[in-house]
Amino acid sequence: MSITLEQAQAAIKAAHEKSLEMGVKMNIAVVDAGANLTAFARMDDAWLGSLDISIKKAKTARYFDMPTGTIGGLSQPGGSLFGIEHSNLGLITFPGGIPIKNAEGKIIGAIGVSGDSVENDHTVAEAGVQAVEGR
Amino acid sequence: MSITLEQAQAAIKAAHEKSLEMGVKMNIAVVDAGANLTAFARMDDAWLGSLDISIKKAKTARYFDMPTGTIGGLSQPGGSLFGIEHSNLGLITFPGGIPIKNAEGKIIGAIGVSGDSVENDHTVAEAGVQAVEGR
Amino acid sequence: MSITLEQAQAAIKAAHEKSLEMGVKMNIAVVDAGANLTAFARMDDAWLGSLDISIKKAKTARYFDMPTGTIGGLSQPGGSLFGIEHSNLGLITFPGGIPIKNAEGKIIGAIGVSGDSVENDHTVAEAGVQAVEGR
Amino acid sequence: MSITLEQAQAAIKAAHEKSLEMGVKMNIAVVDAGANLTAFARMDDAWLGSLDISIKKAKTARYFDMPTGTIGGLSQPGGSLFGIEHSNLGLITFPGGIPIKNAEGKIIGAIGVSGDSVENDHTVAEAGVQAVEGR
Repeated sequence: MSITLEQAQAAIKAAHEKSLEMGVKMNIAVVDAGANLTAFARMDDAWLGSLDISIKKAKTARYFDMPTGTIGGLSQPGGSLFGIEHSNLGLITFPGGIPIKNAEGKIIGAIGVSGDSVENDHTVAEAGVQAVEGR
Repeated sequence: MSITLEQAQAAIKAAHEKSLEMGVKMNIAVVDAGANLTAFARMDDAWLGSLDISIKKAKTARYFDMPTGTIGGLSQPGGSLFGIEHSNLGLITFPGGIPIKNAEGKIIGAIGVSGDSVENDHTVAEAGVQAVEGR
Repeated sequence: MSITLEQAQAAIKAAHEKSLEMGVKMNIAVVDAGANLTAFARMDDAWLGSLDISIKKAKTARYFDMPTGTIGGLSQPGGSLFGIEHSNLGLITFPGGIPIKNAEGKIIGAIGVSGDSVENDHTVAEAGVQAVEGR
Repeated sequence: MSITLEQAQAAIKAAHEKSLEMGVKMNIAVVDAGANLTAFARMDDAWLGSLDISIKKAKTARYFDMPTGTIGGLSQPGGSLFGIEHSNLGLITFPGGIPIKNAEGKIIGAIGVSGDSVENDHTVAEAGVQAVEGR
C-alpha cells in the first residue's frame, strides 16, 4: 500500500497553499512507501539549496518512519545515531520531514519541506500530511 | 527568465492527461532555466527506474538547449559526442526530453518524460511543452 | 539576472590582489545566480584541498543567500540546521563564502575563498564582493 | 614543474578572445600538472552542460597526456580502451582537451573547452595552448 499520485498532489497543494498563507517560499517533496519521489514543487525564488534538502527530508522520514527532527535528536554528538546522515547518499535530520499514513495508520509515504526556518518547514509539512490523513 | 511553478505544473498536468489518454504510466519532470527540478509527478505503478531517467532527460534538454534525442544522434559510437553521457553526473540522450520556450522564443526550462517507448515518452513530453508554449 | 563573466573576473582579480597583499595563497571561485561555476583561480602552491572547498563555499552562499559562516552558526551540534552539510553533494559552512548583489540589491552570484584561516578567507572574499558591488 | 596561474590565465584569455572572434560561447578550463583546476571561465549564456564537460576534457587530457580526441579514437566499441570513460569519476574523450607543454616539451597542464561543435571546441583550446607554448 503506497501513497497515490492523487494523494501526493493533494499534499503538495495543501503545503503550497499553507506556504502562500504564511508568506514563505518552499520546496515541497512527497515520496511513496518505497521512498521514491512521487510529486514535487519548487515555489518561485525558493532557495536553490533547499531543493535537495526537501527531497532528503522526505526520504529520511520514510527511511525510518518517523519525523526527521526525531532522528536529529538521536544523531547529535554522543547520541546513539551519531553520524547517521552519512548513510543513504545523505540524510537530513532536522525538522521538516514527516511520514504520511493511511486510514489504517499504516505509513504510505512521507513529505519533506525546506525553504525557511525549521519550525516553518515543519508547519508546512504538517499541512501536507493533513491533506492526506484528512484529520 | 525562468519557468514559473504555475507553468511547470501546467506542463505536468497536460503531460499527465496525455498519458492517461494513451494508457501509459509515466514519470514527468520539469526543470527551470537553471536545470533545477521545479515540478514532478510519478504516475501510480510507473517504472521505478524511469524516475531518475525523467529527471535526467529534463536536465539534459536544458543543459544543451535541444531535444535529448538530438544529442543521442551525436553520441553514438563514432559520433562526435560519443560518451557525453558520462558528464554532469549522467545524461540521458534518447528521446523524451524537450526544452520549453517562452513567448519570445527564449528557453525557460525543459520537460523530461520516461515510462514507456521513447516515441511515447516524446509524445507525452510534447504535450507538456504545448501547455506552456500555448500553440 | 546573473553575474556576468566580466564581473566574475573582476571579483577574482580583486580577491587575488588582496591575497598577494596579505601574503596568502588562495583558491577563489565565483558562481552565478544558478550556483554554477563562472570563474576560478588557484594561486600557485595554494592548498590542494582548498580547491573543492572554495567552490563549495561559493555554491553554499548562493544556495541559501547568506554568508557561509552564518549557516555554520546554525549547523552546530544542537543547532537547528545540524547536519545540513550532507545535502547538495556537500556544503561548506564556515566563513569564506559570500553572496554578491547587483545595484538593486538582488543576489546575482557568490564568491568562495579557501586557502588560509577562515578569517583571512572571508577578508579576501569580501574584497571580491566589493569589486562587483562597487562600494 | 606545473603551469602557473599566470600562464593558465593567459590561456583562458587567449581562448576567450578566440571564442569572441569566432562568435561562439564557451566554457574554458585549465588544469595543472596534477590535473587540478587552476583557472576557469564560463562565457555568458554558454551551455550549462558544457561547464562540467570542459573541466573533464582538461582533466582527461592531462590524465593521459594526449588530446582527448585521441583517446576517443581508442574508446569506441571494439577499441582497446572501450569504456575508459567510466574511470576517474567520468572522462570526456571527444575533441576539445589538449595538454599544455613548457619550453622543454614537458607537459605542465591541460586545457579543456566545451560549448560548440567539437571542431570549434578544439580550435579554441588550441588558441589557449598557443598562448602558453608561445608558438
